Amino acid sequence: MAQQDRAIRTRRLILEAAASVFDDLGYDRATIAEVLERAGVTKGALYFHFASKEQLALAVLDEHVTDIAVEPQKIKLQEFVDAGQVLAYRLRSDPIQRGAARLAVEQGSNHLDRKQGMIAWTRFVEDLLHQARDRGEVLESVVVSDTAELFVGAFAGLQLMSNALTNQADLSHRLTVFFEHTLPSIAVPAVLAKLKLDPERGAELDAALQRTGRAPTEADIAVS
Amino acid sequence: MAQQDRAIRTRRLILEAAASVFDDLGYDRATIAEVLERAGVTKGALYFHFASKEQLALAVLDEHVTDIAVEPQKIKLQEFVDAGQVLAYRLRSDPIQRGAARLAVEQGSNHLDRKQGMIAWTRFVEDLLHQARDRGEVLESVVVSDTAELFVGAFAGLQLMSNALTNQADLSHRLTVFFEHTLPSIAVPAVLAKLKLDPERGAELDAALQRTGRAPTEADIAVS
Repeated sequence: MAQQDRAIRTRRLILEAAASVFDDLGYDRATIAEVLERAGVTKGALYFHFASKEQLALAVLDEHVTDIAVEPQKIKLQEFVDAGQVLAYRLRSDPIQRGAARLAVEQGSNHLDRKQGMIAWTRFVEDLLHQARDRGEVLESVVVSDTAELFVGAFAGLQLMSNALTNQADLSHRLTVFFEHTLPSIAVPAVLAKLKLDPERGAELDAALQRTGRAPTEADIAVS
Repeated sequence: MAQQDRAIRTRRLILEAAASVFDDLGYDRATIAEVLERAGVTKGALYFHFASKEQLALAVLDEHVTDIAVEPQKIKLQEFVDAGQVLAYRLRSDPIQRGAARLAVEQGSNHLDRKQGMIAWTRFVEDLLHQARDRGEVLESVVVSDTAELFVGAFAGLQLMSNALTNQADLSHRLTVFFEHTLPSIAVPAVLAKLKLDPERGAELDAALQRTGRAPTEADIAVS
């Protein structure tokens, strides 16, 4: 394995370990020592990639925001649904997403600006909704910024409730319920009728995305 | 002031101080010492009412759940909207509600069963929706448990986002956006047309409820 590959692999190991520590303990109680133990790397290796606990947390949050590209669809609102369902699926299966989700909703992390994550997500959803509007998919009554913030805020709460009640097992279902309740107020009828909202969609799309290439995951790394 | 009145007043002072400490610091970092300082009471007085930090937190959460009675309305779904808007208003103005909201969404509080609060809220909303269904206000397609859990989960996330971005100042607006998006999928058209969703409603209803009597608040206590 080339030196650069090893560095990428080590960085990913550390990030996943840090994310799982943040998920289990929260930001305040997370320690570098615990991250080192879970990652099985040296202190020197960690500090080569990340200067502090705060840097680790920001890197985890950064992965969270940038890692949800979905396959382009004829109907742009389907991409909106799909991005949500892929994220919901990964919150069950991907340590980075789980850790980032906890960091994003924690109120006590004084050193992190939780606003940034919410604002980045809102921009992402707004962009999808604007594209959908340009294609005539969105009802006139929709105020894109309100709808985007509703999605981001509600999603945060649904994952929190799902985590408390079922350790995220029912998050896909909760998200489907959200879409079923809200899309009739967002999509024009002809588009609404064609949208696929089933909760299994996240797992299927994630599998397809793994095949067609995206940022390497723990599974990819394990076989490399 | 009779001895019993003084005890009720002291208990309320301690509860409000505890709620503000939980709101500022979270459960893990909250200390009895900080509660004593903010309440201005002796250790003996506190332990007379509450045996531990956990007991304080459970009492704050308990107030949160039981303190949202609204005026009966002809349309039961209006009570559903009103309960949400009164709660949103109190999350801006009432220390107990703010502290309870943070306790309810915190992932790190191992000693508290956060499920209980969510389940209690869900039961409350389910009860309102069942009553609305009995009166023919609710669409056939609605699954009451799904809709109730959607409301509770989404509300948790909306208050979290509002807290991060505006210290709860825009929560009433966010809740109105939620109702505007979801009620067309919940209410039969004739009822939908009559529902009042404006974000000012929470403040108006809270003022009316203060006049007609409810549990004493800090303001009531201050003038007694």
